[in-house]
Formats: sequence, C-alpha cells, structure tokens
Amino acid sequence: MKIVGIAGSLRNESYTHKALGIAVQRVAALGAEVEILDLRKMKLPFCDGGDEFPEYPDVKKLQETVKQADGLILATPEYHGGMSGVLKNVLDLMSFEELSDKVVGNISILGGQSNSNSLNQMRIVMRWVHAWVIPEQIAIGQAWKAFDKEGKLLDAKLSERVDKFAQSLVENTKKLRGVG
Amino acid sequence: MKIVGIAGSLRNESYTHKALGIAVQRVAALGAEVEILDLRKMKLPFCDGGDEFPEYPDVKKLQETVKQADGLILATPEYHGGMSGVLKNVLDLMSFEELSDKVVGNISILGGQSNSNSLNQMRIVMRWVHAWVIPEQIAIGQAWKAFDKEGKLLDAKLSERVDKFAQSLVENTKKLRGVG
Amino acid sequence: MKIVGIAGSLRNESYTHKALGIAVQRVAALGAEVEILDLRKMKLPFCDGGDEFPEYPDVKKLQETVKQADGLILATPEYHGGMSGVLKNVLDLMSFEELSDKVVGNISILGGQSNSNSLNQMRIVMRWVHAWVIPEQIAIGQAWKAFDKEGKLLDAKLSERVDKFAQSLVENTKKLRGVG
Amino acid sequence: MKIVGIAGSLRNESYTHKALGIAVQRVAALGAEVEILDLRKMKLPFCDGGDEFPEYPDVKKLQETVKQADGLILATPEYHGGMSGVLKNVLDLMSFEELSDKVVGNISILGGQSNSNSLNQMRIVMRWVHAWVIPEQIAIGQAWKAFDKEGKLLDAKLSERVDKFAQSLVENTKKLRGVG
Repeated sequence: MKIVGIAGSLRNESYTHKALGIAVQRVAALGAEVEILDLRKMKLPFCDGGDEFPEYPDVKKLQETVKQADGLILATPEYHGGMSGVLKNVLDLMSFEELSDKVVGNISILGGQSNSNSLNQMRIVMRWVHAWVIPEQIAIGQAWKAFDKEGKLLDAKLSERVDKFAQSLVENTKKLRGVG
Repeated sequence: MKIVGIAGSLRNESYTHKALGIAVQRVAALGAEVEILDLRKMKLPFCDGGDEFPEYPDVKKLQETVKQADGLILATPEYHGGMSGVLKNVLDLMSFEELSDKVVGNISILGGQSNSNSLNQMRIVMRWVHAWVIPEQIAIGQAWKAFDKEGKLLDAKLSERVDKFAQSLVENTKKLRGVG
Repeated sequence: MKIVGIAGSLRNESYTHKALGIAVQRVAALGAEVEILDLRKMKLPFCDGGDEFPEYPDVKKLQETVKQADGLILATPEYHGGMSGVLKNVLDLMSFEELSDKVVGNISILGGQSNSNSLNQMRIVMRWVHAWVIPEQIAIGQAWKAFDKEGKLLDAKLSERVDKFAQSLVENTKKLRGVG
Repeated sequence: MKIVGIAGSLRNESYTHKALGIAVQRVAALGAEVEILDLRKMKLPFCDGGDEFPEYPDVKKLQETVKQADGLILATPEYHGGMSGVLKNVLDLMSFEELSDKVVGNISILGGQSNSNSLNQMRIVMRWVHAWVIPEQIAIGQAWKAFDKEGKLLDAKLSERVDKFAQSLVENTKKLRGVG
C-alpha cells in the first residue's frame, strides 16, 4: 500500500508540513509505504485547464507519483475559509486518471479557531474526481500553539485523533483497494 | 462606482473571460467604471501566506486595484467541483484590507452540466473576508456551446439572468457603499 | 424596520433560544421593531412541498409575519453538522414571497467545538431564496458553558461579536431596504 | 447485506419516491436485501435534540431498522437549495449508534436544473456521523419530465448513472463492511 502526502503550503516553517509529517509517520508505522511530494521543492505552473506541461517536468512527476498511489493525505493551510490556491492548483494539474478511486484523508491547519470550511471543500472536490474521502478528518486550530519544539502535537486528544485518522486511512485503503 | 473583474482562467480562448467580459460590459452600461485585471497578462506568484512579494510588482497592482474598487465580479472555470486554483491563489494574495466590504458577484463556467459547487465556495470564501456576495449568481454550463461567434450568449434566459446580475450588483453597491 | 427571530430548537432549556434572545435584544436596542416566532408555541406540519396548510393556521401566521419583516435572525442548534430539520422545515414552509430580499443574520449553537457547517448551509439556502445574508455570523461552541445564570454570554469577545452582528444587521437592512 | 432506503418527501405523487424506488430495485437486483422506510406511512415527531420519543413508536422502528442496515440510500427533494427539513429531521432522530460506518448513496430530485446543493449537504452531514458516502451520486433535474408513465427514467444516460450508483453501493458495502 502506497500513501502519498501533499501539503498545500509553501512556507519554510509551515505548520501544515508539520501536521502532514506527523500523519504520514503514523501511516508509515502502520506498514504503508509513504512518500511526501514537497511542493516547496517542486516547480509547478499555474494550471490553465490542460494536463500537459512539457516545460515543467515536475507536473509529470506529480501525476505519476499520485497515479501509483493507493491513498493520499492532503493537508492545507486554511486561507480565507478555503483550501490554499496552491493546493487547489496541484489538484487542478491532475484529473480522474490520477485521482479517481484513491482513498483520501484531509487535514486543515488554521491560525484561528478550528473550522471545517477547507475540509468540506476538499471533500467536495475529491468526490468530484471520484476519490473516497474517509470520514475521519483533522482540523488543527491556533496552529501556532499546537506543536511543541520537537514538532509533536501538544494536545493529547488531537494526537489521538490523528492516530484514528491514520488507522482509518490504512484499514480502509486495504478494504477499498484490496492492497495491504 | 468602480467595479473590478477577475477571471480565474489562463487560457487564451477562455469562456470564463468571455462571460466576464459580457458581465463587465453590462455593468459599465449601467454607469459603473469598470476595470478587468487580466491574469493572463500579470505575473503573480503562488501565495505562501504572506502579503508582500517585492519581486512581483503585479501583486501590488492587484492589491491596489482591488482596494480601490467598490465591487468585484469574480468568474471562474469550475475545475473538479471547485473554483480554479488560479483564482483562489489571487484571493489568497489579498486579505481583509482589499476585500472586506466589497460587493461581489460570482460567475462560474463549466464544461458539463451547470452546478453551484464553485459558486458556493466563492460565496463562503468571500464571506470569510467580509465581502457582500449578491444573491444573484451565474453558472454557465456546457460553455462550449453557450456563445455565438461574436461571443454573445445564445440562451436568451441566461442573457437576461446576466442583466439581472449586473443590475443587482450596481444597485446594491450603490446602497451598501453609498456610491453612485 | 422590523426584524423577526426564529430559533430552530424545540427544547425548553434551549441555548439556541438564549442566543437568539440576546441577539434580538441588541437589535431592538438599536431601534428595530422585533418579534420572535417561538416554534415551541406554534403548531406546524412537516412540509410536503406545498405552501397551503389550512389545518395549521400557524403556517399562515409564520408566512405573514416573515413576509412583513425587513430582516431575519435565524438561530439553529447544529445537529449532525447541519441546521436542525426543525428550522429547515420552517424555511421549507415559506418561499420567495416571504424570504426574498430579506436581510438575514445567522447564528449556530453547538455542543462541541464551534464550526460553520450549519452557518454555511443556512447561507446557501437563504441565498437560494434570494435573501441577503450579512457577512457577520455567530457560532457559539460548547454552549453548555457559554452562558451565565442570567443567560448572558460569558465570553466578552463573543459578546462583542454579537454586538457587531446586530449593528451590521440593522445598518445594512437600512441600506438595502431603505427603512429605518 | 441489507440496504435501507429513505425518501425525504411526504407527497403522494412524489418523484423522490420514484427515484428511490428505482435505485432500491437495482440494488436488490444485485443481491442486497432491501427495505424502504416510507415516511408517508410513519408518524414521527420533530426532533428536539433528544433520542427517545416513547409516544412515537415509529422513532424506535426507524432507529432499529437503520441500525441493522449495512447501507443506506437517502433521496431528497431539493427544497430551497437544501435537503428537505423532513429528511434532515429523520437524520436528527438518529445518531452515531445508527448511522456511523454505514455506506450511503445520495439522490436529489429537483424541479429545475440539476444541482448538487443538497447532495453536498447530505455528504457533509453523513460524514459528521462517520458514515461513508460513496463518490457516485444522482441529481435528477426537471423531475416532472424525467420519468415515463411506468415510472422509468427516460434519459438513458441517467439510467446508466443509477446503475453505476447501485453497483458502487453494493460493491463498496461488501468491501467496507465485509458482508456479502
């Protein structure tokens, strides 16, 4: 089973990447092969509605990596009550071929109180490409005080929530895709 | 009264730009000063959560132009059941300072049957920055057969809907912002 | 200016009614005429898609009262990530004739962490009937510890938020409907 | 495998019930045991947030029947851009105990152009109670001309869409719940 993680933030010190890292680690601990596509290290164009971008080999890399995955973890900073344009653009660069039938877990990171605006949008968008979004989802509010110095989640309940998220993703990817 | 139009498509032959052009024209006919920010001619970065991008003077131009507007028309191609990453990124490059209290009309353009997924997302996102989204909204489905050679809308009812959209935008911008 | 308040809860000791009461009081203090339609004291049927219910005179009362209003405050308990069926049914019993062009402020009350699922749904639904939903909205999470014994909000910031909500509703009803 | 169908309409001549009937029939043809809970024949109260309604034995019947199901088909008339209050109230009368882990397919019926407002709301609400909503979903627009005299769908593509919906529901209930 292969799970690919994508964080829709380009910041160096990004809570979104921290949260993704934690979730990916827990999925790996459950036996999944994991890979993170770090958008900060990739050169991707704005999507113009097409799917071929010969000048941007990273588009091909993105598409191929996601295509070979069984599941995805998408993590986004919530900008203005929605997933980041960065993340939506990455999804726009792919389509049914890469995204359909994938099992997906969503995470959102917020500066203020937690909310589910971006999680809902990600759910609707991933549904549109016929992916399976697991019921479990993570919203981390007031992200600036959510992590300790080692990057671990301070809130035990939230940490447990990530455990259940990872478990659900792995178990249900097994069930839905027969891999394991 | 100044209304600024932004289309979230980078395609040359873009139905989204066509639809925006029609709506902007009708708003102008009602006496508003209009300006289109054509993203195809601007050089904008992916937003990393900050709001200053000294290497990209077009960010400043975007921010200043929108800041001085009373109202906005946002038009998006619907990609994967959501507004384009291109448009969301443009919104991410601005914030309360530019967007709050603006009166906004939303348009979405779809290849298939019309829907309101992106319109809903745009409404939620623009609400988040405390803009006023007018109740009238336009979805143009099967866009490839919606326009004639001169770029006019073929469907008379849809055309009338755009009239009402433009009227509502102008009248309610007057009411809400006391401009005329 | 007349503002009508409706709370989508049938509980006797209802936080939703408390929150509605506070909001309505503040709107009244700003000079609006207010009326609360208390669903606990009305006999309403489930809506079957029609709009006449001769056996239920309260449907007529609901319709007439809302029709004569300039603005509405809708408050709902969030049940299962959505507005209550009770509130949606009340909205179903009316239509464009009663609801279009009304200026609306939305409140949601939650047992757990605050969220905007019901607020978003109420916004989409009220948009559908061409009402104007103000950008300001109130979510009261962990409602069981939000109020003091006199029914006042304990959190000063939240209380201030209700002030702004009331002000926006009154000011913008003036602007949009020319009453006041 | 047991699949329970619920239509959120109380009309006698209801397109929602017709559509549900078709979907349930196809699910049965694939080997599932099916049962329709016909709300027109049940006496249910408005939900006040509680889960015990001794004066309404049909609440118990609803809860027990859904609890024993592996999957659900929910069909709603779209009233005002949302699922009917009738259907939401039925969901409010249940909770995690009945709804969690169920595999769910959603259908909406509209008088006008098809849309996904209610489908989205149903997806968000059923996610909230940790059900699995299948990616496939059905919107039947202009329902008054969608069915022939025998109650069959006139549009072959739409009919095929219902086939895929039924197949997905049955196959994925097998996978997710290990029933057969």
